[in-house]
Amino acid sequence: MTLEQYLANTLPGVTDIKDVSRAFAPSNIALCKYWGKRQEEFNLPVNSSLSISLGNLGTETSLECSNTDILILNGEELDSSDPFSTRLFNYIDLFRPPSIKLKIETSNTIPTAAGLASSASGFAAVIKALSDLFSWDLSDQRLSEYARIGSGSACRSIYHGFVLWEKGEKHDGSDSFAHLINNSWTDLRLAILDVCSDKKAISSRDAMNRTASSSPYFTQWSDIAQSDLALLLNAIEEKDLHLLMKTAESNAMAMHASMMAAQPTILYFLAESVEMMHKVWACRSSGLSVYFTMDAGPNLKLLYHKDDEAEVLKQFPDAISVNPFVT
Amino acid sequence: MTLEQYLANTLPGVTDIKDVSRAFAPSNIALCKYWGKRQEEFNLPVNSSLSISLGNLGTETSLECSNTDILILNGEELDSSDPFSTRLFNYIDLFRPPSIKLKIETSNTIPTAAGLASSASGFAAVIKALSDLFSWDLSDQRLSEYARIGSGSACRSIYHGFVLWEKGEKHDGSDSFAHLINNSWTDLRLAILDVCSDKKAISSRDAMNRTASSSPYFTQWSDIAQSDLALLLNAIEEKDLHLLMKTAESNAMAMHASMMAAQPTILYFLAESVEMMHKVWACRSSGLSVYFTMDAGPNLKLLYHKDDEAEVLKQFPDAISVNPFVT
Repeated sequence: MTLEQYLANTLPGVTDIKDVSRAFAPSNIALCKYWGKRQEEFNLPVNSSLSISLGNLGTETSLECSNTDILILNGEELDSSDPFSTRLFNYIDLFRPPSIKLKIETSNTIPTAAGLASSASGFAAVIKALSDLFSWDLSDQRLSEYARIGSGSACRSIYHGFVLWEKGEKHDGSDSFAHLINNSWTDLRLAILDVCSDKKAISSRDAMNRTASSSPYFTQWSDIAQSDLALLLNAIEEKDLHLLMKTAESNAMAMHASMMAAQPTILYFLAESVEMMHKVWACRSSGLSVYFTMDAGPNLKLLYHKDDEAEVLKQFPDAISVNPFVT
Repeated sequence: MTLEQYLANTLPGVTDIKDVSRAFAPSNIALCKYWGKRQEEFNLPVNSSLSISLGNLGTETSLECSNTDILILNGEELDSSDPFSTRLFNYIDLFRPPSIKLKIETSNTIPTAAGLASSASGFAAVIKALSDLFSWDLSDQRLSEYARIGSGSACRSIYHGFVLWEKGEKHDGSDSFAHLINNSWTDLRLAILDVCSDKKAISSRDAMNRTASSSPYFTQWSDIAQSDLALLLNAIEEKDLHLLMKTAESNAMAMHASMMAAQPTILYFLAESVEMMHKVWACRSSGLSVYFTMDAGPNLKLLYHKDDEAEVLKQFPDAISVNPFVT
């Protein structure tokens, strides 16, 4: 089945169109990473993953019926040939009747300096806004499934709190969506260490594809992810913050290690990333319980107990702290 | 069989002792790394490895019969409780009659700034000097086998040129020794980029043991090494320098990746190591054919064609160039 056929079978009809709609979706940071697709068209993952959403940091999107397609990103109109514009409208084309044109205003509430990827929250916000615009009233599960088609990790940005994306088994992705595990554990804090906000030398999509196709370590990755996921779920259940943070750091290192063995090698670490890693480890040696995770990019995200926030921010004065449970 | 029993069966008797002996052994840099032991006491490796010796950079050792054990390293007498002294005399005890005491003078001809490990050349030089002192006239194969007992990679430092250490299969290590592949290919040059000469946070011995026992990627390592070794032997046979350098870099990245997934993680990269890696890759993007390899430490070793030496040293002014075929 093609993606178009699957959507034709599952999408509600468009009978009641609002003039305008608005939605917000949070960014999310994976504690057990999504790394590697088992199917490209539907964005189906090799492994299940687990994330924490970033509270009120994310993407706010409004849609308005219009005579022509317009995309305004963070207050600036993008040219229709802009790659992000092309990607977003190609995605929207899957869901809208061809006659409907849209003015989209989308803004990230994440400080630009945080250097966080916005595609997860961006696609989650736009599918929520589309569902509202067409009065579909889709379930969160369905929103998550559709968001996944735009960008894999977007399926996790439908929710606040701890979110589990079940990889699923089916070819059409109908069992590959995210759901909430636990929406609050207020001891946990995050801080974003921006190392570099430049465009990445290789996109995370290309990096995961190259890793899956050429890294001899990739065959082990799904076992690692499965085992780390079990540890993380146990840590959330038992409120064992140390286990949660330790497992998240280890999972990130294993993901980056899988890339390093790709042909050719992929190294998102920059000098400053490595300097910050050694600093995190030095802090831990001195008794400060701080860990990090790292996506397919050079920035570190620190993990720590809320009681350690003052000390963490003293050690990392440029870190941007986030309370994931304030929404 | 214990190591002592094995040596009792294979060592010649000591009947003719010279007053003094002297030997030199070169350092070596692995293009396919030795990483992981299948047996600790005999230093038997999981995988075969291949190195290039560093010409006249290595260790010069002289032995002299004495009333008491004395160790002079680079002109300075070491205390008998020094860990290096203990390790070296424990090794020598395996080979000498208990009545024989030695004054050992050992000096590294490698600039200290190069930050190169000297245990490989050190143990190779001392077994050569012992063989001479006791008039054993051991074959290179036997010297290599005995050197391996002191430090795994020392078995490769018995030779100049390209050296293959066959991992062997036997429990007593009698088929685990190095031999020469090809002692000259004068197109190849190396340069050592010293990032940090501080003592390593974790010894390579402990790092390989931790990787072997806890990294989920280690199961793949021996396959990678076997496949890289075949590529390297082919590159030497075909005089394909690009394939040689590319494979060496990829093998080093795979080794470091295997460590990163150990529990807890092991990262020898320092900020400056990563800066230099990105610089190497930027040079390659600009058309300069330079590659690197990296042992269990933060320093990079550059690999390039002799015709590119001027440009490489212009790009890396602090690099210490080595002609591996000048002896």
